[in-house]
Amino acid sequence: MKTYGYTKVDLTGGYLFEKQELNRTATIKAVYDRFDETGRVGAFRFDWKPGDDLRPHIFWDSDIAKWMEGAAYILAKHADPELEKKVDDLVALVKKNQDENGYFNIYYTVVEPENRFTDRECHELYCAGHMMEAAVAIAEATGKTDLLDCMEKYADHIHKVFVEDNSAGFFTPGHEEIELALVKMYRYTGKKKFLDLCAHFINTRGTVEEKRGDIYTQSHMPVREQAEAVGHSVRACYLYTGMADLAIETGDEALKAACRKLFDNMANCKMYVTGGLGSTYMGEAFTGAYDLPNDTAYAETCASIGMIFFAHRMMQMDGDAKYADMIELQLYNGMLSGLSADGAAFFYENPLEINLSEQYDSAYYGKRRFPITERVECFSCSCCPPNLNRVLPSMGQYVYGIEGDTLFVNQYIGSVLKDSGISCTMTTDYPRTGTISVKAEGTAKVALRIPGWCRGFTLNKPYVMEKGYAVVENDGEIILELDMQAYAVFADPRVLRDAGKLAIRRGPIVYCAEGVDNGSDLHSYLVKAGFKAAEVPCEFGLPALDIPCKKLLPLESGLYSAEMPGTEDAVLRMIPYNAFANRGESDMLVWLTAALG
Amino acid sequence: MKTYGYTKVDLTGGYLFEKQELNRTATIKAVYDRFDETGRVGAFRFDWKPGDDLRPHIFWDSDIAKWMEGAAYILAKHADPELEKKVDDLVALVKKNQDENGYFNIYYTVVEPENRFTDRECHELYCAGHMMEAAVAIAEATGKTDLLDCMEKYADHIHKVFVEDNSAGFFTPGHEEIELALVKMYRYTGKKKFLDLCAHFINTRGTVEEKRGDIYTQSHMPVREQAEAVGHSVRACYLYTGMADLAIETGDEALKAACRKLFDNMANCKMYVTGGLGSTYMGEAFTGAYDLPNDTAYAETCASIGMIFFAHRMMQMDGDAKYADMIELQLYNGMLSGLSADGAAFFYENPLEINLSEQYDSAYYGKRRFPITERVECFSCSCCPPNLNRVLPSMGQYVYGIEGDTLFVNQYIGSVLKDSGISCTMTTDYPRTGTISVKAEGTAKVALRIPGWCRGFTLNKPYVMEKGYAVVENDGEIILELDMQAYAVFADPRVLRDAGKLAIRRGPIVYCAEGVDNGSDLHSYLVKAGFKAAEVPCEFGLPALDIPCKKLLPLESGLYSAEMPGTEDAVLRMIPYNAFANRGESDMLVWLTAALG
Repeated sequence: MKTYGYTKVDLTGGYLFEKQELNRTATIKAVYDRFDETGRVGAFRFDWKPGDDLRPHIFWDSDIAKWMEGAAYILAKHADPELEKKVDDLVALVKKNQDENGYFNIYYTVVEPENRFTDRECHELYCAGHMMEAAVAIAEATGKTDLLDCMEKYADHIHKVFVEDNSAGFFTPGHEEIELALVKMYRYTGKKKFLDLCAHFINTRGTVEEKRGDIYTQSHMPVREQAEAVGHSVRACYLYTGMADLAIETGDEALKAACRKLFDNMANCKMYVTGGLGSTYMGEAFTGAYDLPNDTAYAETCASIGMIFFAHRMMQMDGDAKYADMIELQLYNGMLSGLSADGAAFFYENPLEINLSEQYDSAYYGKRRFPITERVECFSCSCCPPNLNRVLPSMGQYVYGIEGDTLFVNQYIGSVLKDSGISCTMTTDYPRTGTISVKAEGTAKVALRIPGWCRGFTLNKPYVMEKGYAVVENDGEIILELDMQAYAVFADPRVLRDAGKLAIRRGPIVYCAEGVDNGSDLHSYLVKAGFKAAEVPCEFGLPALDIPCKKLLPLESGLYSAEMPGTEDAVLRMIPYNAFANRGESDMLVWLTAALG
Repeated sequence: MKTYGYTKVDLTGGYLFEKQELNRTATIKAVYDRFDETGRVGAFRFDWKPGDDLRPHIFWDSDIAKWMEGAAYILAKHADPELEKKVDDLVALVKKNQDENGYFNIYYTVVEPENRFTDRECHELYCAGHMMEAAVAIAEATGKTDLLDCMEKYADHIHKVFVEDNSAGFFTPGHEEIELALVKMYRYTGKKKFLDLCAHFINTRGTVEEKRGDIYTQSHMPVREQAEAVGHSVRACYLYTGMADLAIETGDEALKAACRKLFDNMANCKMYVTGGLGSTYMGEAFTGAYDLPNDTAYAETCASIGMIFFAHRMMQMDGDAKYADMIELQLYNGMLSGLSADGAAFFYENPLEINLSEQYDSAYYGKRRFPITERVECFSCSCCPPNLNRVLPSMGQYVYGIEGDTLFVNQYIGSVLKDSGISCTMTTDYPRTGTISVKAEGTAKVALRIPGWCRGFTLNKPYVMEKGYAVVENDGEIILELDMQAYAVFADPRVLRDAGKLAIRRGPIVYCAEGVDNGSDLHSYLVKAGFKAAEVPCEFGLPALDIPCKKLLPLESGLYSAEMPGTEDAVLRMIPYNAFANRGESDMLVWLTAALG
């Protein structure tokens, strides 16, 4: 399936549009200001000297690059001279400070210039990849090619060092990213050399001895043999995205097959119900199948974003609605939980459970390690905030696709598609409601994704189901009505932390209970599947849910009893998971105690 | 209630008698051999010099002291020349190496002689206390008073340093223990100075500024104001035991009231269903009320033993059966889980849940910290093994008590009591069966504890209930029949990790499921209260239980589903909790997923 890029699609209304606007009006500036304060912006002046404060960090280039990429997506749709000047100034500094040979990296120019391309774990190629993504985005959005020129030169230099001379201290990137960026460079410039460099990195991975050449960096075996998602979850998703890109360009069936296996392994064995990926902070990594602890979940915001990228390529590769389902799950849950309601604070880790009573601080002996409980404005490793900056303004790319005579509607967002010979207007307040109107021109058929979570729908036309899409003749306005009633979700019982529990979703939105609404004994609410949830207004742009249930009562005496604790009728207030922790520090629970009898 | 010491009571048969015999025939030797290999025995020669291997550790004296105490209890009942010689040799070394002024401590003589009594956290008074307990035990068991003479001299020296001269670098012990030991010294010798020294330490605690003078060492406030069990759980139990001893001796009502509050706080807010105390390895400590995580439980074997000591004093103080219930719970569960079936290996920590799939080792980034999963022969801090050595041969002291004209039967163990003017023979295979025969002479009444766990009993005589005891006229053989049918136990729902779960007990024994019997998906067994358990033979000296239940089946596709997973009829094999991890590394679960609907 060919998908339409974000430049062809304007979002026009609804929940995700509001988040896109929040990014444009608040988040993009908040991230820049924090990056300015912390020295990341100033580092581009290349004037740091030993003894100065704010020593550049090895991955600061990438933070700014992702921010520039996001700014470019905004500028493509909205004139914003102030924002454009910030980008221009940064690009000018890149141009000024790039090495004659094309090399560009702040840390390895002002701090350790003698050690370029010696340490695989030091993110040089990762930074390069993000600068290349920014370069393509800026060129596409504004027509300005200064940064692209710089990055073409840098890519040529990298090709020389890693392919022609093979003179670097390692063979493949420790942190993947440049692979997918090189495909973007290739697609935009048409220069095959960039695709070849991507193929070189992907094909060399796991075939040579190198530092951390283990599962942590997905370097434990050749990529075409990999079937289990392992190691650092963001690196994994970025690699798999690059693999899928390369496979699409080359038609490499073995690579495609590996991508499918890796996707299914994540989706079916290693993903939280919220889309969160990565069960442990130790290495920010995947662990074993079905090991999904809720309170210590890592579930990095960037991993959900990486999964969006990967699923987008898989949709391009195979045109199956399950990949669009994944994008939807991640957009609404795993990714958006990383962003505060005011657009200025962020989660890096996204746990599915907070029990403040377990975060006991013994003062002298410390406390157990848990994810932080409230969003913050910046991290020392602040990869997630600018990743949000670039996904939110480019969400249009996930909405529509085309294959043959059929227009595919992959995401339900109020929007207008305009391309040569084809157009489409979608009107919907999804997911606040389940009613979607689609009016398309220039296509014989329209395929509407029937979400995997959807338990019932009506369509005003005859349809046939194909790969998860309801395909209809395009003979006038299409009205799709998705059943948005909230219901219980169960996990495979091999996920031992969720056995005997249930989660609640409404449409694509996973819900959670917070202590601020329900008191701290969240585990004592006993919920029966088949509840009738009441939708109630809520400050977070989506309905809250009131779930009728029972609440277990404290024992009258002692700590243990042969009698089951008494219960009282109760109502559990649930809010969208992505909105947790916006009202102060609070207990939080996704997986509720289930009445399974 | 006056209780009869172990010298007056011989155990004659049954499960605990078998454990006592196991200690006598295996454990006492195994611990000595490990202590010999690791240098603890040799350290008593006081010949270590800088540069030598096996540098004495600050608490090695206490390891050997507890072992000697246990050996003495054995020697009181069984001639064993080899064992006696080991004790005699050690005592001779103490006598030889004690300072002229009475001071005795290996580390602070051969390693840091210049720093005696300068560091509150270095266990000198703790070691002194254990040496005193050993001294009293040896004198009482064998009539040999060499060690007692040494320790009286040492106690005098401590009195001089801490009371008369007030010349130490601190005021009260960092690790409590000497308090209860001084009461033993006082009771055996009649010398009031030892009780006064105990009172000095207890009354000074929490009233002066000192190192770690915080909750970790129960030094955060005067002891009579303490109402919540805090800090290092073994230190806490030892302190509370000393407080109760002192209160019994002095009749101090404020101190008695504090003891009652601290006991109830542990029993009602901070104790695992197995009796385990201490929720975190960070400081080996209590955390907040109801915070009882199962997989990371610390529940140190020594803390259960400390609780036995404390509950024993509380029974002496108040004569309430709830304290005998506590002793029973700890003996059978929290304490005995520390000992392997062969008597030669030990747990220090006693978790209530093992999920091997969660103990993911990322190699480079390590793995989450969990209690060890199989017992080992020795620890670098090996306090628990010799603590078992001394409890097991002295269990007779917990069986009988007297108050006025009533003989109290506190524990049900086949045994014979003989004291001047009174005798009793108890015949029972408890807790394999619930039938207990008691024949007493020389007492007008007999009071039989009706355990708090007991849901039904029959007695062949009329009785009145008093403080948890069924009191009968002593006019012939008494036959008590306790209902031993297994049943479900629920936790107060404020224990969030146990909400929606149930445990299973049969009589005083808490049960667990192991992966070796049931496969690794222990959480997927769904158990309904009201089950009818089948008792089946088991290698661990108590019946195993087969629990009819349902088992949740893996989903047919995907990781999450709107349909509850299917179930199949299943039988869950449960074994006594104290016997877990005797058949290799395995998953283990006490709190089962409950069908609560």
